[in-house]
Amino acid sequence: MRRVYLDHAATTPVDPRVLEAMLPYFRERFGNAGSIHAWGQEARGAIDHAREIVAATIGATPSEIVFTSGATEADNLAILGTALASEGKGHIITTRIEHHAVLEPCRFLESRGFEVTYLPVDRYGLVDPDEVRRAIRPDTILISVMHANNEIGTIEPIEEIGAIAREHGIPFHTDATQTVGILPVHVDALKVDLLSMSAHKRYGPKGVGALYVRQGTPIAPILRGGSQERNRRAGTENVPAIVGFGKAMEIAQEVMAEEAATLTRLRDRFITALLSLGEVTLNGHPTCRLPNNVNVSFKGMDSESILLALDLRGVAASSGSACTSGTLEPSHVLEAIGLPPEIAAGTVRFSMGRATTEEDLDYVVEALSEILELARVR
Amino acid sequence: MRRVYLDHAATTPVDPRVLEAMLPYFRERFGNAGSIHAWGQEARGAIDHAREIVAATIGATPSEIVFTSGATEADNLAILGTALASEGKGHIITTRIEHHAVLEPCRFLESRGFEVTYLPVDRYGLVDPDEVRRAIRPDTILISVMHANNEIGTIEPIEEIGAIAREHGIPFHTDATQTVGILPVHVDALKVDLLSMSAHKRYGPKGVGALYVRQGTPIAPILRGGSQERNRRAGTENVPAIVGFGKAMEIAQEVMAEEAATLTRLRDRFITALLSLGEVTLNGHPTCRLPNNVNVSFKGMDSESILLALDLRGVAASSGSACTSGTLEPSHVLEAIGLPPEIAAGTVRFSMGRATTEEDLDYVVEALSEILELARVR
Repeated sequence: MRRVYLDHAATTPVDPRVLEAMLPYFRERFGNAGSIHAWGQEARGAIDHAREIVAATIGATPSEIVFTSGATEADNLAILGTALASEGKGHIITTRIEHHAVLEPCRFLESRGFEVTYLPVDRYGLVDPDEVRRAIRPDTILISVMHANNEIGTIEPIEEIGAIAREHGIPFHTDATQTVGILPVHVDALKVDLLSMSAHKRYGPKGVGALYVRQGTPIAPILRGGSQERNRRAGTENVPAIVGFGKAMEIAQEVMAEEAATLTRLRDRFITALLSLGEVTLNGHPTCRLPNNVNVSFKGMDSESILLALDLRGVAASSGSACTSGTLEPSHVLEAIGLPPEIAAGTVRFSMGRATTEEDLDYVVEALSEILELARVR
Repeated sequence: MRRVYLDHAATTPVDPRVLEAMLPYFRERFGNAGSIHAWGQEARGAIDHAREIVAATIGATPSEIVFTSGATEADNLAILGTALASEGKGHIITTRIEHHAVLEPCRFLESRGFEVTYLPVDRYGLVDPDEVRRAIRPDTILISVMHANNEIGTIEPIEEIGAIAREHGIPFHTDATQTVGILPVHVDALKVDLLSMSAHKRYGPKGVGALYVRQGTPIAPILRGGSQERNRRAGTENVPAIVGFGKAMEIAQEVMAEEAATLTRLRDRFITALLSLGEVTLNGHPTCRLPNNVNVSFKGMDSESILLALDLRGVAASSGSACTSGTLEPSHVLEAIGLPPEIAAGTVRFSMGRATTEEDLDYVVEALSEILELARVR
């Protein structure tokens, strides 16, 4: 049986070159980067090198990169760290379609006296920059809008929102987990002050991510202890993972343009084929969309049955995000774009990757055609 | 030149069997454990297996293990998570010799209205359980005392403190980063409710640790987002690292008794040889001491010069902990045991490991003899 992995938005396999780069740091060069001896300095050098690459990937300087255990920690550091650095109160603007790693810290802050505005989105999942502007208050301490949505793939007008934030002198955070390394991301072009990244969504290892913190942006640490990461994130540096993150970003920079073009072509061909199955609708924006994201609703179906039937046929896809699958909550993103619950219930996300082929996608379309036929006969 | 790594308390090389166990999870079995398809289930199964081993290592049940990005996060989760679960105020009892990953969250909480008692220790670094008892107040929400000190190796009377905590119904946390897998650690014998662990101090990978949370112990998450780790720690699970953690604990369980005996023998022989160098004093308790820890002060010397001279001779040792080396602060631990600053200034920690041999230690003694002679001639 063919095996087709179409859940690259959840995680990706580590690139063999990334793993190769990481391997020496598990055993031969295993030092603690905080140690002053040769073993430590070797580790420190490797981290410095990775930090330069990661910084260059987004147009930042190395000192603006704080390595974290992943994008969730980066998002938490951005939101909670900004709140901690404020006077213990203030107003935050975010959107209804953010990842839970942004929404949950916001909800927590609401329970502690902060106020949060959750902006609506249009039917494509787009945030209106004018709504951001209107939501700004004198006590607004942070604006957080994701670069691209992880479920429906819509790319947000970050530059425009960044310009508004800057105009008002308000720190601006974007969760770029789904875009860094797949689309050009430049912190100055986007006018962001805080930006969350992940390695494992881009063929790097799990357990590592970063928060870009523009110089001068007030932020307090959320993990406290040793003086690592210039006192912005305590804990022994995860050297092999950081090295892998650097290598993954280096590779991503090299292949990005061609990869995005290939994925976009595959994506649009796949969308056309899926829509031709009948009673299938596309979610998210048709063009302002991640090159690797396809999110569709199958009318009258429930997504879990589709996913299980696909799984039996060797195909991996997802409903919502991997972080909440297993829970029975409806997707807050599909709700926010106004999808009726009965349509949302039959929604599946396919996310393609570097190894995805036309044949893979043809196989999936055929499998889906079969699954739909079987279900609709019943 | 011989290379002798005597900084195992800072970090250890990954055991080849651990790395072997991890490898498939980078590429072949790379799924996100939150995904419902085959790739995800494979990852989920691997985590479940590792969780069982880690739990068994300390006599816990799997559901009481919360995987974190390391011991710093585990300590932060214990301290801050307990505070968050309280009514926003209360009293914490800890000691002056804790790791910064405990002390810094405590200091932060003090700035937010909590009160913290930092208990003194005796000249060996021992906490007096009676002092713990006397410090208890009606509003005490947590007691946190480390199992063994990372700098001077003193093993604390955790069982007795645990009994006192239990008598008063106060949650009891211990940072067991330096003991799990090297000494027998059983959460019921120790009477602890929260216990921090690390993988990379025991031949496992960096970037993973765990907090044991006894069932019923009130704790709030510090990283918020997805529903991973039963809503106690959000973020995509670091599958290869968790698998490696499990394997490292499995191996530790097997070799522990013999390893501890060998290390103790090496340690005592090494201490004798060091003391014979003249004007050298041992810090920490002579017998209630980690099998792999030797901490000595060289009178009239400064530790940085010794470490650099050792480094030139291929020997890795440390002053203080790796988490703060590079900073110029004197060690808070040496201060707490009452070491005069001029003696503290010449303090070096040697921490042996599985591969350490008598010849290695003889080489280090000889190197030190040379270094001291050169310095004292000058």
